[in-house]
Amino acid sequence: MSKLVECVPNFSEGRNVKIIESIVDEVRKVEGVKLLDYSSDKDHNRSVVTFIGSPDKVEEAAFKLIKKASQLIDMRNHKGAHPRMGATDVVPFIPIKDVTTEECVEISKKLGKKVGEELEIPVYLYEDAASCEERKNLAHIRKGQYEGFFEKIKQPEWKPDFGPGNMNVKSGATVIGARFPLIAYNVNLGTDNVEIANAIARKIRYIGGGLRYVKAVGVKVTERNIVQVSMNLVNYEKTPIYTAQEMVRIEAKRYGVPVIGSEVIGLVPMKVLIDCAEYYLQIENFDMGQVLESRLSE
Amino acid sequence: MSKLVECVPNFSEGRNVKIIESIVDEVRKVEGVKLLDYSSDKDHNRSVVTFIGSPDKVEEAAFKLIKKASQLIDMRNHKGAHPRMGATDVVPFIPIKDVTTEECVEISKKLGKKVGEELEIPVYLYEDAASCEERKNLAHIRKGQYEGFFEKIKQPEWKPDFGPGNMNVKSGATVIGARFPLIAYNVNLGTDNVEIANAIARKIRYIGGGLRYVKAVGVKVTERNIVQVSMNLVNYEKTPIYTAQEMVRIEAKRYGVPVIGSEVIGLVPMKVLIDCAEYYLQIENFDMGQVLESRLSE
Repeated sequence: MSKLVECVPNFSEGRNVKIIESIVDEVRKVEGVKLLDYSSDKDHNRSVVTFIGSPDKVEEAAFKLIKKASQLIDMRNHKGAHPRMGATDVVPFIPIKDVTTEECVEISKKLGKKVGEELEIPVYLYEDAASCEERKNLAHIRKGQYEGFFEKIKQPEWKPDFGPGNMNVKSGATVIGARFPLIAYNVNLGTDNVEIANAIARKIRYIGGGLRYVKAVGVKVTERNIVQVSMNLVNYEKTPIYTAQEMVRIEAKRYGVPVIGSEVIGLVPMKVLIDCAEYYLQIENFDMGQVLESRLSE
Repeated sequence: MSKLVECVPNFSEGRNVKIIESIVDEVRKVEGVKLLDYSSDKDHNRSVVTFIGSPDKVEEAAFKLIKKASQLIDMRNHKGAHPRMGATDVVPFIPIKDVTTEECVEISKKLGKKVGEELEIPVYLYEDAASCEERKNLAHIRKGQYEGFFEKIKQPEWKPDFGPGNMNVKSGATVIGARFPLIAYNVNLGTDNVEIANAIARKIRYIGGGLRYVKAVGVKVTERNIVQVSMNLVNYEKTPIYTAQEMVRIEAKRYGVPVIGSEVIGLVPMKVLIDCAEYYLQIENFDMGQVLESRLSE
């Protein structure tokens, strides 16, 4: 089986198409890496690239992208609505197939070291690659942003994990790390009362005493006159979709409200949905190698 | 999206490894075709090959396999437990991804014509490619087998669809056609009473007034002291796995017997299981393009 890692770098340019294309081209040029998507936001002045491939090749492409961004983006001129601290702002590696989170942490460290040494950009490791608890959360690391980091970086507790101990004036600083694939999943309820969706969200999410890997809020879907429990499932292996779905259903019963549908937003690994089929069909001893398509990539 | 057709030819040699390998090699040699599996049965003196690829390439590989089998196998010397009528006995084409049954019928006809004309082997089209109702069923076509076909082929109603009107003495005759992927699916019941499994099987299967595309029997699983409803689902789009599963559950309730598990036997297309996840999770507007792995093969 071939290993697959996804990488979703965010970089601080969302307006100049020529610069954006030059940076994305660095990914296109690496053989064995597949560009899945990229999109730019003019207000945020920020772009997000999604690509996938073998661990080695994805790491290689990520370095090339960071290098190109360091050449073409000057943070001294950057303005945008989204918080940011570097030309390449954040680079998460996500295990997709036959790869562990630990392997993605290793990639993060190797890449971080190389970026720090060769490009002289300070690097912070985050999420599962974080060197301490305080560096797990991206928003927490990024607080103060590019402008504030010239001071923040000098504090002993904010010494970068790799690279120089001072800001790179042109490129800022970059956050690199490993995280599990995030599934955006919404459950639609047969009511227009958003208070019910909110009450359910509060019960099922981690901070309310619910499921460890679920973030949830209630949302009104005005055009359909219904509400939904909008969730981020941050570890689909430990808290699968079906668990979240059934938890919503159980809580909704309290209000006599039916689950009338659900939505999967964006891309999901095949295994996420096949896990659900296995659960509901009660399949015993299923092997992902039985999925015909999985044999094709061998 | 790339089109995928599966082909599962059966040929009449299950003992001579050198001949078997030479025939399978013809498939290996075609670029763009992936050999998924092959196995031989000595008692049946028969081998089954499974390969997959784009419609054109699969057709090309199938022709090469039939040609090689016609060179290396002499039906005058063939003995085996399994009914057979030709060196290449039967060649089904199965739509897997972004291909219709109609396209597989077209492949069957093109291949049949070529085999008939270039190899001078009489060809019968079967299942969805059949030229009339009487030729849909393989067992019905094959009745009389190789030995009996020298007479049978002369009957006007058994004139071949392609090729000569007489048997090919060395290679016999070949059956080619298109059929939907067959899913072998068993539902385990929490009882040791096989009569209950049989009664459920009779209710859910087509011939008993049940589901159009379900064949089912009750089976005892002695080593686990349980029984199962063993099914062939012959059209998973029209009668999906979850429908069969829920029908078994509904019938089992009559006996107070629980469904305690299920088994998927062999390979299944990804879509078969994702359809089930969609049903149970009530996912709205899901697009197979949202499955990350489906993007990799684009």
